[in-house]
Amino acid sequence: MTRDDRSGRPDAGALPAAAAKQAFLARLESVRERYLPEILALLDDVVREAELADSGLAEMCRYHFATGGKRLRALLPLLVADCLGEDPAKAVAMGAACEMLHNATLVHDDVQDGDEARRGRETVWHRFGVARAINLGDAMFYFTLLLAQRAPVSAARREALARRTLLETLKVIDGQEQEFALRASSRPSLARYFDMVEAKTARFFVLGMAGSAEMFGREGRVLDGLTEAARQLGILFQVQDDVLDLYGDKGRDQRGSDIAEGKRSVLAVHALENASPDDARWLLEVLDKDRTATSPADVERVAGLFDRLGSLPFAVREMHARRQAALTAIGALEQTSLSRMMQGISETVLEPVRDLV
Amino acid sequence: MTRDDRSGRPDAGALPAAAAKQAFLARLESVRERYLPEILALLDDVVREAELADSGLAEMCRYHFATGGKRLRALLPLLVADCLGEDPAKAVAMGAACEMLHNATLVHDDVQDGDEARRGRETVWHRFGVARAINLGDAMFYFTLLLAQRAPVSAARREALARRTLLETLKVIDGQEQEFALRASSRPSLARYFDMVEAKTARFFVLGMAGSAEMFGREGRVLDGLTEAARQLGILFQVQDDVLDLYGDKGRDQRGSDIAEGKRSVLAVHALENASPDDARWLLEVLDKDRTATSPADVERVAGLFDRLGSLPFAVREMHARRQAALTAIGALEQTSLSRMMQGISETVLEPVRDLV
Repeated sequence: MTRDDRSGRPDAGALPAAAAKQAFLARLESVRERYLPEILALLDDVVREAELADSGLAEMCRYHFATGGKRLRALLPLLVADCLGEDPAKAVAMGAACEMLHNATLVHDDVQDGDEARRGRETVWHRFGVARAINLGDAMFYFTLLLAQRAPVSAARREALARRTLLETLKVIDGQEQEFALRASSRPSLARYFDMVEAKTARFFVLGMAGSAEMFGREGRVLDGLTEAARQLGILFQVQDDVLDLYGDKGRDQRGSDIAEGKRSVLAVHALENASPDDARWLLEVLDKDRTATSPADVERVAGLFDRLGSLPFAVREMHARRQAALTAIGALEQTSLSRMMQGISETVLEPVRDLV
Repeated sequence: MTRDDRSGRPDAGALPAAAAKQAFLARLESVRERYLPEILALLDDVVREAELADSGLAEMCRYHFATGGKRLRALLPLLVADCLGEDPAKAVAMGAACEMLHNATLVHDDVQDGDEARRGRETVWHRFGVARAINLGDAMFYFTLLLAQRAPVSAARREALARRTLLETLKVIDGQEQEFALRASSRPSLARYFDMVEAKTARFFVLGMAGSAEMFGREGRVLDGLTEAARQLGILFQVQDDVLDLYGDKGRDQRGSDIAEGKRSVLAVHALENASPDDARWLLEVLDKDRTATSPADVERVAGLFDRLGSLPFAVREMHARRQAALTAIGALEQTSLSRMMQGISETVLEPVRDLV
């Protein structure tokens, strides 16, 4: 484990992009291997702790978690702990809480969006019904806080962790509201898109990163720097997700599923903001079609519009800018381990789009 | 305000039923008048505290609370505080948390049950859509815990309050699951009905009563006695609600709406358990009809079956038994104020059914 280090230069220890990515993935893998089993065991254990009479919630919870996932949100607090010279084992409960919370939102998101499949399996609502999926998500939001109560720190720090979990999550839910509003708008703006993403996606990263540092007693500029870096990283992460849905080639069921779903992705919002009134009108029509009515030809026509308007280069430029902002915010803290981790994680997110433009 | 008192006799201070009810209602009214404005202000204040960018959650929250309600769950912790000789003002934040939580479950229940109206107004999902009602309920579950964090007691006691809120709520959600299972069963039993009600309804009373005592540092047999009394009171409360839906005459939109909704009420489950196979079959058919297809004649036919099988007298006997069990559990604590409150509240719940049989 590394210790806090202060080299005196913001870019001290900066590595070439490929090396930064490799170093990050190696560290991620080692943290995953060492701690993920404990985290997953806690996810089961907290359900037992609640002593439920009916096994339905436990069964649905296991079913949902069996859909897998990268577990990145579970590991972020441990990675931050490691960078700060703290024992990652002390962040295991918080990691489990973040993973539970992320999945609580997924269970309800799938209901809200009508998504029938997740990672190749039926979603909870599609298998067990909407009413029971609402129950499961509700329970998972509360399991999250039971997990946070297991953090092996002082009662005051546990209370601060709970408070941060509550407030960041409320911002995530508020981001969902903003997304619905964006969808209902005939002229969604990029400014509102980025506000929405900051709330809906980035606050999870703020929770995992700044929340971990806070749990270990960090305050002031360290928290501010981590918050800003996590905010930028979260936006980078969401823009990548939006881009790869149309331009990526791995692990997606269907090219352009966001277009079929009518999602206001960074590409769609950029195009709507820059298109002629006629083009904006038919683009909105395609986006608002029922997803089953959207044809591959529709998707190609939209992709052609994105090409003409430069929506992909815009998104990639935005990603570079967010990466730079994250590194600047972290660099100002003059802690080489944190800077290297942020460099590695942002390179990892950027890499799949580097060759697209 | 009364102080802790120990008379040495479990039934010390017992009053005639009418006097007990009057004394309770007078105390409830005085606590309501003195503290409800503060509680309602906190419900608004906690939404502001979250600093949401989109005003949608705040708007829906205000809309929902404007539907009114008895606010009994908000006041229970204050009544218990008063009986224990503690300052009810210190239970205001907890009362607000209980009220927020109760309403979070109502917002999601209305989605789950497809109820379009509540207290004469459109339900949240019917007005704002299912997806946004899910968001509101999620946010309200988390506002609940922000409110609990405002309790003016030590950090350790606030943590215990949060933990109890989480665990009792998980039992309430588990009770919802049990209710769905009961509905899917062709032979629901009274044993499973009472288990379901204990979880779904009674744990809210346990939270408000035992949780309040715990927040004020009570432990051991006082908590056990209050838990048992609250459990019995909660069941009494739910059975009354089931009975008045068909036999009550005040404030209901439609006689027998539970029958139209297919609810497995105490009456329906008693009848299903005691009916001939033929009668049980057609009763289930009526219950499982779409609510709009259930005619007044269907309701009368079901009421006739309940009459033949003695379902109403069974329910009323059950209410008397629960009342007695609650008073016995409280009486054992030898605290006259608590005993009188429990006598008063259970008389208030029993009174509307006394003349039905």
